[in-house]
Amino acid sequence: MRAIWARADGTVGIIDQTRLPWGVETPALASLEDAARAIEVMQVRGAPLIGVTGAFGLALGLREDASDGALAAGLARLLGTRPTAVNLAWALERVRAGVAPLAPGERAAAALGIAEALAEEDVTACRAIGEHGARLIAAVAARAGGRRINILTHCNAGWLATVDWGTALAPIYMAREQGVDLHVWVDETRPRNQGAALTAFELGQEGVPHTIVVDNAGGHLMQHGQVDLCIVGADRITRLGDVANKIGTYLKALAAADNGVPFHVAAPSSTIDWRLADGVAQIPIEERSPREVTHLAGQRVAAPGSAAANYAFDVTPARLISGFITERGLCQAGAGGLASLFPEAAAA
Amino acid sequence: MRAIWARADGTVGIIDQTRLPWGVETPALASLEDAARAIEVMQVRGAPLIGVTGAFGLALGLREDASDGALAAGLARLLGTRPTAVNLAWALERVRAGVAPLAPGERAAAALGIAEALAEEDVTACRAIGEHGARLIAAVAARAGGRRINILTHCNAGWLATVDWGTALAPIYMAREQGVDLHVWVDETRPRNQGAALTAFELGQEGVPHTIVVDNAGGHLMQHGQVDLCIVGADRITRLGDVANKIGTYLKALAAADNGVPFHVAAPSSTIDWRLADGVAQIPIEERSPREVTHLAGQRVAAPGSAAANYAFDVTPARLISGFITERGLCQAGAGGLASLFPEAAAA
Repeated sequence: MRAIWARADGTVGIIDQTRLPWGVETPALASLEDAARAIEVMQVRGAPLIGVTGAFGLALGLREDASDGALAAGLARLLGTRPTAVNLAWALERVRAGVAPLAPGERAAAALGIAEALAEEDVTACRAIGEHGARLIAAVAARAGGRRINILTHCNAGWLATVDWGTALAPIYMAREQGVDLHVWVDETRPRNQGAALTAFELGQEGVPHTIVVDNAGGHLMQHGQVDLCIVGADRITRLGDVANKIGTYLKALAAADNGVPFHVAAPSSTIDWRLADGVAQIPIEERSPREVTHLAGQRVAAPGSAAANYAFDVTPARLISGFITERGLCQAGAGGLASLFPEAAAA
Repeated sequence: MRAIWARADGTVGIIDQTRLPWGVETPALASLEDAARAIEVMQVRGAPLIGVTGAFGLALGLREDASDGALAAGLARLLGTRPTAVNLAWALERVRAGVAPLAPGERAAAALGIAEALAEEDVTACRAIGEHGARLIAAVAARAGGRRINILTHCNAGWLATVDWGTALAPIYMAREQGVDLHVWVDETRPRNQGAALTAFELGQEGVPHTIVVDNAGGHLMQHGQVDLCIVGADRITRLGDVANKIGTYLKALAAADNGVPFHVAAPSSTIDWRLADGVAQIPIEERSPREVTHLAGQRVAAPGSAAANYAFDVTPARLISGFITERGLCQAGAGGLASLFPEAAAA
């Protein structure tokens, strides 16, 4: 099962991630607006997956109206859903560039083809990330002398965040298949609990030993030698290696640096924003509803009358990152690292 | 209203903090076992308050049986309730030392007197912490040139964590009374949400502007200049200034150091464990039920079948702490700081 797929009736199937882990529901997206709303309410989430969902959404829109005006309006609607992950803008631009030169009558089919190609590319990229990252994990395990190693991850960067395999979790799945004895610390990931709900669900399904901890716990675990490696995903990476990812990632990177624990970021190149250098200054950080903080399962959990703020991402400076795991292999963070793997994109 | 008080009928009144902020219930503790259970299930919590509760609990126990055996058994029962906060051991030792030389018939009344004295001492100490800390806040406000300043706190170290006033919150209450324009970022404080439930409740009651954020958010806020000062409480401080406090405190201290934000710890001297030097190696860290992580309000919020771990505290090394706020004034963290304020205790 993939996280998104084209259905025979022309609609697009997704897994409703707001219902997991309690039930696996697979609604159909029938229109651009369906896709935009699915991204906004986070029925689909994860940078690579919202990119592919945006592409499918644009294809659905062009089926109804393929005029230049509709194309521009559809792009604006989808781009406005979530601001931080750059994969969305990247995927939408891929579709736009592919269909804009075509006659309106040819655009819908072409857009669908591009969306399907993007989905396949994402699967291929994530599989490659898994293979490269599995070698990294195997090396950490070898240094640990064969004992079980502990990997900490934040939020969900598994197959639910991509089309298949995942980014941060793909190396874990592949290393385990290759016989590495490992255990995963799963950060709960407040306020939406993607760790406790989605990553724990994925790891449970795959039979990977894991333990949920609150977001507060990672520093304590690292101080006590209970973490051999951190791997997280990314929503946007600057050309100099600053990483926007789920809020709280920066705190774990600080703890990793303070305790000499390697901290790696796994992401496809579609997550790199080559236009940006300084992540803290330049990456837009989404603010979501305070209700995600004050309420859980419809029930208020915070003191009545108190306000809340809900920043969805933070930026981890490249200086705190040990390296990147991309579809073209591993590289160091900081100037030159990413460009050495993707020289053509860095030059463009 | 205080957080604990002797009632006319010989029982001890508390505020059931597991019911806040939804209702203010004030059960009576009628026995040592009542007191032990109230500490264990965290009807009362906060290092200074559990110390005073332990003292009252021992007095209640001695009323039923004041023999040497009962005294030893009662001490053991109460000491075993929670391992990290040293105030409990400190307060129990104060009662033991006071009543052990007495004839059994005199012990219960003497213990009650000592417990009441400890409660008064705590109020006095917290008021002094508030006064010293308010000067620190006023200095931060002066450097900010009169704009509203932002203070971040973690967990609850307010009047609910002590007998009255609080430790970390006392300076905030007093600075505000003195006209300092301030706003408090309240860490939610998973897994038991003492920030969202108790600190937000306290600040709301006192009319202090505040905003709840998830524990993941503090680093982002500090990166963007949104925090002028951090103040937290403590559960145990080593003589060299390492601080055990609610899990996640260490992560905030790392972020504060990375962003040049002052990070202060407010605590009475009863929180200092002069026997210990290295906090990470020597302070016992309580592990509580995984259910506090996986469930909220009786409902499972984590993926079914996934295990959880629940470490209740972490240790912030002295090198990350800007200074202490104690009842005798401010001092630097690190060797010599605390000893300069409490030379007689350091020498003993």
